[in-house]
Amino acid sequence: MDRPGFVIEPIEAQPTAQSLASLVDSTRTLARPPISNFRVSAVGLGSSGRIYVGVNLEFPGLPLHHSVHAEQFLVTNLLLNGETSLTSFAVSAAPCGHCRQFLQELRDSENIQILIISDNNDQFTPLSDFLPHRFGPLDLFPEGSPFLLEPRNNGLKFTTRTRMDRDDEKLKIAALEAANASHAPYSGSPSGVALVDCGGKVYKGSYMESAAFNPSLGPVQAAVVAFVAGGGGGYDEIVGAVLVEKEGAPVRQEETARLLMRSISATCSFQALLCCSDSNYV
Amino acid sequence: MDRPGFVIEPIEAQPTAQSLASLVDSTRTLARPPISNFRVSAVGLGSSGRIYVGVNLEFPGLPLHHSVHAEQFLVTNLLLNGETSLTSFAVSAAPCGHCRQFLQELRDSENIQILIISDNNDQFTPLSDFLPHRFGPLDLFPEGSPFLLEPRNNGLKFTTRTRMDRDDEKLKIAALEAANASHAPYSGSPSGVALVDCGGKVYKGSYMESAAFNPSLGPVQAAVVAFVAGGGGGYDEIVGAVLVEKEGAPVRQEETARLLMRSISATCSFQALLCCSDSNYV
Repeated sequence: MDRPGFVIEPIEAQPTAQSLASLVDSTRTLARPPISNFRVSAVGLGSSGRIYVGVNLEFPGLPLHHSVHAEQFLVTNLLLNGETSLTSFAVSAAPCGHCRQFLQELRDSENIQILIISDNNDQFTPLSDFLPHRFGPLDLFPEGSPFLLEPRNNGLKFTTRTRMDRDDEKLKIAALEAANASHAPYSGSPSGVALVDCGGKVYKGSYMESAAFNPSLGPVQAAVVAFVAGGGGGYDEIVGAVLVEKEGAPVRQEETARLLMRSISATCSFQALLCCSDSNYV
Repeated sequence: MDRPGFVIEPIEAQPTAQSLASLVDSTRTLARPPISNFRVSAVGLGSSGRIYVGVNLEFPGLPLHHSVHAEQFLVTNLLLNGETSLTSFAVSAAPCGHCRQFLQELRDSENIQILIISDNNDQFTPLSDFLPHRFGPLDLFPEGSPFLLEPRNNGLKFTTRTRMDRDDEKLKIAALEAANASHAPYSGSPSGVALVDCGGKVYKGSYMESAAFNPSLGPVQAAVVAFVAGGGGGYDEIVGAVLVEKEGAPVRQEETARLLMRSISATCSFQALLCCSDSNYV
């Protein structure tokens, strides 16, 4: 059998606990955890019936909050592929509190069914049982706001001061598209990153906020997930990065994004651009 | 009544749910959440019988993972005051998953009793009920390791290359002491920060790791908690900062610490020093 990729076409109408567990086992090798060496894989079902893989990523030389958990990778993978909901997932270790919190950004998250492989049984349990007395998006926005994975366009455009050259136009536009798909209802500070590898392939990542703030996933992390899920090898294959964020926003990613990029790919170029809300400038 | 401080001598042998709830209400004004404006206070009992306050802190201009939650502030406050365990706490909103995870670094955390004021009843519930199927320190260290709040000394000392001047010796030694009290069992990368304000008062903060990595609290954040709990006003009162971290460690705080300090106190001096394990150099 070929080593599985990060998106798997279903071979059966309704994958069983056993088949998801088997995929969890075979995909743990895709994890990149050089600090903990604790490999985690999460294999989930999107509403389209396709199967998605998420693994954990860690970045030596930086604080641990830069780490990407398997469940966050999984959700980012769904977003990259236009899936609008996560039905269920199997995971090799119990999700930590931070991931349980992050998953609440999805609509009807309480119904996501979770199977923990290490429990050695085949029972799915809803997320609501993992996070009783929950604090989530509705505590900040009682009247509701768009959830993560729901299609959105933040209405951002480049300012009149943004300079474009033919060489980098594609990467800048990709980063703006990623910022437009960003989920940032709590701070109003959407952002996006586009990476390009040595073969010219572009990878986009959208910043995703959590109502609990700290579990938010940065735009570089999201783009690195796209790189890994897209078949990227060593991070030093990434040769260019563009960040787009909103002028005057309270949350600013620039310095942190530059730090992470420099750490994982020392020779990668990095550009930060500001954008603005369409309505203010048209 | 005077506005309460961050450490309160008990006025009754066993504070009631009602008296803790009243303290939560009166201390919410101490929170500093300029991004969300969502003020949280957590008021807890240490094993000594003293009462401690924690509030949330947010830092505009930076990513949200720099934020300090009320529960993290509370635990840091206990550490600053030599408390070795947290018995119970009352809090104004349900703890998020990230904080539930962080609290698991305390020994016997499952028995910490939590009262959520907004639930409008007086029932304490153990942490174990907030985080079923938990992932915690014992998943990474089945045979156990020291828990957060337990007295420790990481056996760190300055290297022979560390330069001391009489002017800054006190601050550097304070930062080394903070690194020695750091809880970093998962990465083996202890670190500490010491801040000095315009009146010459020194504040120490120790880096504290979470088994789930991302909820770890950085050393600058811990020192800022000490500053706020110690009566500090605007962050621009902080005029000097020293970070001490371990040579060759996989987790490095320097650039992130510099970024946070520059953001909250533009004119503050910042120095990063390396230390090493005592046994390697004596």
